[in-house]
Amino acid sequence: MTQEQLQECIDECLRCVQACNYCYKSCLEEESVDMMKDCIRLDRECADICAFTAQALTQHSTYSTELCRLCADACERCGNECSKHHHSAHCQKCAEACFRCAEVCRKMIA
Amino acid sequence: MTQEQLQECIDECLRCVQACNYCYKSCLEEESVDMMKDCIRLDRECADICAFTAQALTQHSTYSTELCRLCADACERCGNECSKHHHSAHCQKCAEACFRCAEVCRKMIA
Amino acid sequence: MTQEQLQECIDECLRCVQACNYCYKSCLEEESVDMMKDCIRLDRECADICAFTAQALTQHSTYSTELCRLCADACERCGNECSKHHHSAHCQKCAEACFRCAEVCRKMIA
Amino acid sequence: MTQEQLQECIDECLRCVQACNYCYKSCLEEESVDMMKDCIRLDRECADICAFTAQALTQHSTYSTELCRLCADACERCGNECSKHHHSAHCQKCAEACFRCAEVCRKMIA
Repeated sequence: MTQEQLQECIDECLRCVQACNYCYKSCLEEESVDMMKDCIRLDRECADICAFTAQALTQHSTYSTELCRLCADACERCGNECSKHHHSAHCQKCAEACFRCAEVCRKMIA
Repeated sequence: MTQEQLQECIDECLRCVQACNYCYKSCLEEESVDMMKDCIRLDRECADICAFTAQALTQHSTYSTELCRLCADACERCGNECSKHHHSAHCQKCAEACFRCAEVCRKMIA
Repeated sequence: MTQEQLQECIDECLRCVQACNYCYKSCLEEESVDMMKDCIRLDRECADICAFTAQALTQHSTYSTELCRLCADACERCGNECSKHHHSAHCQKCAEACFRCAEVCRKMIA
Repeated sequence: MTQEQLQECIDECLRCVQACNYCYKSCLEEESVDMMKDCIRLDRECADICAFTAQALTQHSTYSTELCRLCADACERCGNECSKHHHSAHCQKCAEACFRCAEVCRKMIA
């Protein structure tokens, strides 16, 4: 793993935190929150795991590999849920950020 | 501040984390999530602030006082919202935990 | 998994957070910090992972199993390091809390 | 507060997390950790507060103002400690990141 790969992974995790938290906040402001409940829950779980992973990576944590694996799983699950909501721009943007982050995390542990 | 007061404050913060997160999860499973959106948002904010404060207190952080003040504010606001939902047992339990935690945090900074 | 098991696991994680953070703070106050550097690093990593796992468990997170596994690993590694420091009461107490938490986390994923 | 200001503040908080955690890790690898104990402690406190503030800002949290104030305090204190270590490149870089983050946080609450 090069320094560039590490930095790329930190950056994608942090971008994903932002996209997930923005999607979370926006889902809670939708007229019909009922349809968005899985999205709300997965957004916050994914944001928390991405933020935790980014913090660990910046400390060169002993558990970087395990956290990248967990992060990739959380991002994929959140991205799959978000990508179902075709009408919602924040969900589509969130799905993109999730899939990109998952991909970079998978590269880290390859 | 005695060791007993410190421990009491840590314990109440952690109890409040549990009550808020349980309330959050339960609100998202309600039939009508729409009515609970403020509760959902404030539950998670309060849980995060309580958890962060508890971690800081266990490290005897430089910022314990400021965090206890913020924690008391977050608990009161969350408790006020939760206590509006008379029909909901998890909201009532959450409000109780929030008000107790706020009180103990206020004592810490008095 | 019963409700009692879940609560036991949350409680042990939170006890471990406290023991690790107390050990961390105490190590930094030792006369010779040099000998304690692995302990310092592993204490904080373990505390963060235990706190994160406890938060996830209280939300009935999708990733409870993965986090309990990671938490057990972090606790064992931290406990192994701490148990080397025979002279230090806080390290011995921390090692105990770590091994107990690891055991309860392993039961959760069994 | 404009969207640009919010994003600038999130970005500076996250840059400061990285600088503090890198400084923390590097201090623990120094030959003489004894001299760096305040730096180690303040680095991690500052990193945690910056990370927490950034997460809150991305959620448009109710407590953004209070957290920016706390974050500015933590950054200044950490920056002041780090800037004493003239010989250490990671401390100097950390101090710079801290002071920049403090400044942007102060602008947010002005």
